Amino acid sequence: MFITFEGIEGSGKSAMLELCRALLASLGRRTLQTREPGGSPLGVRLRELLLNVENSRIIPEAELFLYLADRAQHVREVIRPALETGLDVLSDRYADSTVVYQGYGRGLDIENLFQLNDLAVQGLWPDLTLVLDLEVETGLQRAIKRNRAQGLTEKEGRFEAEALDFHAKIRAGYRAWTERHPGRIKLVDATGSREEVFARIEPWLRGLMAGCP
Amino acid sequence: MFITFEGIEGSGKSAMLELCRALLASLGRRTLQTREPGGSPLGVRLRELLLNVENSRIIPEAELFLYLADRAQHVREVIRPALETGLDVLSDRYADSTVVYQGYGRGLDIENLFQLNDLAVQGLWPDLTLVLDLEVETGLQRAIKRNRAQGLTEKEGRFEAEALDFHAKIRAGYRAWTERHPGRIKLVDATGSREEVFARIEPWLRGLMAGCP
Repeated sequence: MFITFEGIEGSGKSAMLELCRALLASLGRRTLQTREPGGSPLGVRLRELLLNVENSRIIPEAELFLYLADRAQHVREVIRPALETGLDVLSDRYADSTVVYQGYGRGLDIENLFQLNDLAVQGLWPDLTLVLDLEVETGLQRAIKRNRAQGLTEKEGRFEAEALDFHAKIRAGYRAWTERHPGRIKLVDATGSREEVFARIEPWLRGLMAGCP
Repeated sequence: MFITFEGIEGSGKSAMLELCRALLASLGRRTLQTREPGGSPLGVRLRELLLNVENSRIIPEAELFLYLADRAQHVREVIRPALETGLDVLSDRYADSTVVYQGYGRGLDIENLFQLNDLAVQGLWPDLTLVLDLEVETGLQRAIKRNRAQGLTEKEGRFEAEALDFHAKIRAGYRAWTERHPGRIKLVDATGSREEVFARIEPWLRGLMAGCP
């Protein structure tokens, strides 16, 4: 199974990924936990470029191509081999992030972005994508608090530093994109405690397992 | 005027670019000399990634997207502003390199590569592209000698280290691609002395100037 976690900054993607991983492991499944950007050795270098505030002059098209490079390498070098050896792969962000951030966020053409991503992922789309949906203000407050705790305000704060209305576009973009792919993408209410949010996710996960080998 | 220089390693692109620049300068024209990858601050970082022998595990699609990111940033941040202020831009490699290396060299779809490049360059194609054509063995010997002289064998030798038959594919690819764009791309016999090769280029350059403001 290939499951991806999406949503605005601070929506709780990492926490939900970890709870899903723990559930799968408790059921005896082997999992690989990964993320984008930065899921391969090349990707780690690209992540530094992409998330560094000093690089905020990167134009939208260049940013897009860097994400696609990261993703192409990630799929071929990490995700596909893991799936082929029978692991479940859980990724913190994947192709939908690019469609939403570069399309709904930066105004690039959505259909074009979908085609470019399809090329980058070589046809490999997730079995299930969970979009954690939350008020932008709540998400950003969580993200800022987390960054401070990790001492990351300088180096990894590019997205968080963007204006609030950009993040509002992203949230709306995720909702619109989810409606276009209702089979694969599920919108999850991300308010409340971790346990409450995970209780909303668990049925999707168990449903997927029921249909999987 | 926007002029690009293409060809296999060691075909003499940099030398011809410099002679063209000198001629244009002697005629009172202001020029900008640039190159790919690495024509912008972001590009310098990407050039390090792309040409480092340690990164030979980069898959063809990821390599393609990195070149496109470099190019998109280069066009928007460097080339287009220079042209708009009236400079002639001379670039050592540009979009045709990607079509030829990733298409004819690595087997990606040519038409797809053309479309992706058109997106990256935002419609900005050169007024004149000079393809320096030379026996692969001769070019590689020159390139190896130059790299040694610059102490670059470790860091910048990735392309030169590729097998001879890869470079033969590139040479054939440039010839095939030139035939598809006879108006813009000119094949130049790159054998002989610098002066002899430049004498073959000069008419194209003067022809272009005659038609330019």
